[in-house]
Amino acid sequence: MDRGLRIGQIEKGMSLDFAAVRAAHERIRPHIHRTPVLTSARLDAASGASLFFKCENFQKVGAFKARGATNAVFLLDETTARRGVATHSSGNHAAALARAATLRGIAAQIVMPSNSSKAKVRAVEHYGGRLVFCEPTQPAREATCARVMAETGATLIHPSEDERVIAGQGTAAVELLEDISNLDLLLCPVGGGGLLGGAALAAKSMRPKLLVIATEPGKADDAAQSFRTGRLVRVEKPDTIADGLRTNIGPTTFALIQQYVDDVVTVSENAIVAAMRTIWETMKIIVEPSAAVPYAAILEHKIALGDRRVGIILTGGNVDLDALPWIREN
Amino acid sequence: MDRGLRIGQIEKGMSLDFAAVRAAHERIRPHIHRTPVLTSARLDAASGASLFFKCENFQKVGAFKARGATNAVFLLDETTARRGVATHSSGNHAAALARAATLRGIAAQIVMPSNSSKAKVRAVEHYGGRLVFCEPTQPAREATCARVMAETGATLIHPSEDERVIAGQGTAAVELLEDISNLDLLLCPVGGGGLLGGAALAAKSMRPKLLVIATEPGKADDAAQSFRTGRLVRVEKPDTIADGLRTNIGPTTFALIQQYVDDVVTVSENAIVAAMRTIWETMKIIVEPSAAVPYAAILEHKIALGDRRVGIILTGGNVDLDALPWIREN
Repeated sequence: MDRGLRIGQIEKGMSLDFAAVRAAHERIRPHIHRTPVLTSARLDAASGASLFFKCENFQKVGAFKARGATNAVFLLDETTARRGVATHSSGNHAAALARAATLRGIAAQIVMPSNSSKAKVRAVEHYGGRLVFCEPTQPAREATCARVMAETGATLIHPSEDERVIAGQGTAAVELLEDISNLDLLLCPVGGGGLLGGAALAAKSMRPKLLVIATEPGKADDAAQSFRTGRLVRVEKPDTIADGLRTNIGPTTFALIQQYVDDVVTVSENAIVAAMRTIWETMKIIVEPSAAVPYAAILEHKIALGDRRVGIILTGGNVDLDALPWIREN
Repeated sequence: MDRGLRIGQIEKGMSLDFAAVRAAHERIRPHIHRTPVLTSARLDAASGASLFFKCENFQKVGAFKARGATNAVFLLDETTARRGVATHSSGNHAAALARAATLRGIAAQIVMPSNSSKAKVRAVEHYGGRLVFCEPTQPAREATCARVMAETGATLIHPSEDERVIAGQGTAAVELLEDISNLDLLLCPVGGGGLLGGAALAAKSMRPKLLVIATEPGKADDAAQSFRTGRLVRVEKPDTIADGLRTNIGPTTFALIQQYVDDVVTVSENAIVAAMRTIWETMKIIVEPSAAVPYAAILEHKIALGDRRVGIILTGGNVDLDALPWIREN
């Protein structure tokens, strides 16, 4: 497939631009935290650069996902909204969609595999989502979601391949660039690519000379392979500790990555665990494995930082405290 | 011993007043973080009150101890300072004193028991302290410290029974009351009482109608017993998970507690662990067991909060991530 043509085609159908991100920010502002940006003298000394950590682990529902889900839900017209929203997800997007729907006073149908962890089920229940369990396979998830949508008329809110969601996620970068001047680099993990796509679009619009580097587990390197080959590559059943990054990018997020992202680097599983532990110990904040992936790339010297000013999005803080990766079961 | 007389006697010798805390704040400001005050909609909903968490876990060296040690070190006259400072401590005060001495360009002799954890030894080394090991008994610690002081001329900086240290710790409350208006209650853990004494003095000076409630592990309840009986009671070898609160209050801090603290409540070990885990999971921040003691008192309904505005000092975040209290060794 011709790369230039491909982007052009997708762009033609895209209504997603920086104005959409700005509008999303105004729309969701009453419902989300403007999260703080933290720094660490120790991590600056260790890296030689100036690191600015955007703490989306402090965001509502514990992850940036609150931004995109809220934007999508509040963009629905009244008639559509009344029929509710739906998604099949077992992660942070499910909790975020349930919360956004409750805020708007509508129903969220959340299709979850029957083997989901109790913590994830509790989170969705806590935010008022309606749980629909299914067999733990991708076809079962999709079929169950389709059935629920047919029965209720609910609108699907995909966790990453939805422009309303992508625009919402991009607001994290808007806040970071508003709060920290003269950033040279922006580091962001990539799973489905919704955050990366929205953040890259926003950052390049606000500061065209800033470099956007995506970071990805080597064991879930669909974005890196796709970026390198120019074709959308899938990785099936990626086996990484970074559970938020096990999803593949799709056509919409890939087009944004091709247009706005300067590089995609991969990291080892050991580096992810080491980075997560370093952030916990040094910054005294809890980040989930996926959120530690950009710092893992710094630990593994995958990015030439120099003494530059580097923004890092810490994507979430939802961790099972009974199963920490550095504690071995005896 | 007559309580009123006793306070009067101690006060006569005390130069510690709110002006000393204000002066300490000016003195240490360039060397410490003005730590953020965090809130949690979830914990507010659970408690019915409005909780304001002063995050000294984000402080330099990971604990409020940086405040008092820095004030004490920078108050020394030049001749005295050149002979260095000394302490016997295995905790956060040791790291804080080492750091403060390094900032001033003088030596810190840190006497530590030979069975101290590697993490604690590393922290003191990291900040440039000179380690002197001794047998792990209180007499050996005191004798070794006395010998080192005799050999070097170093000045003892006690972790809690030192007015310079107490004035420095009180600055945490100054910042909290400056940042959050109309607080009704201030909750603070008590170990040696340096933070409690300084914070209570500062808080009552800035807002006389605010209630100061000290919180203490039931297994280390020397302050509660002393407060109740009016006599300084010691608890030997207190067996609490809150390692920062295993020390006893002394005459100086007891006098401040009698004058400025409204109540001392105790909590169970289970509540400390539950409170620590709740803060980690809900606020996504790392606090050590001692720092969770005030929230443990809320969990155990030891304090009548109503819907009042409650300041809570989260004292530190130095935890051994390999030995978390909710993970049982198999």
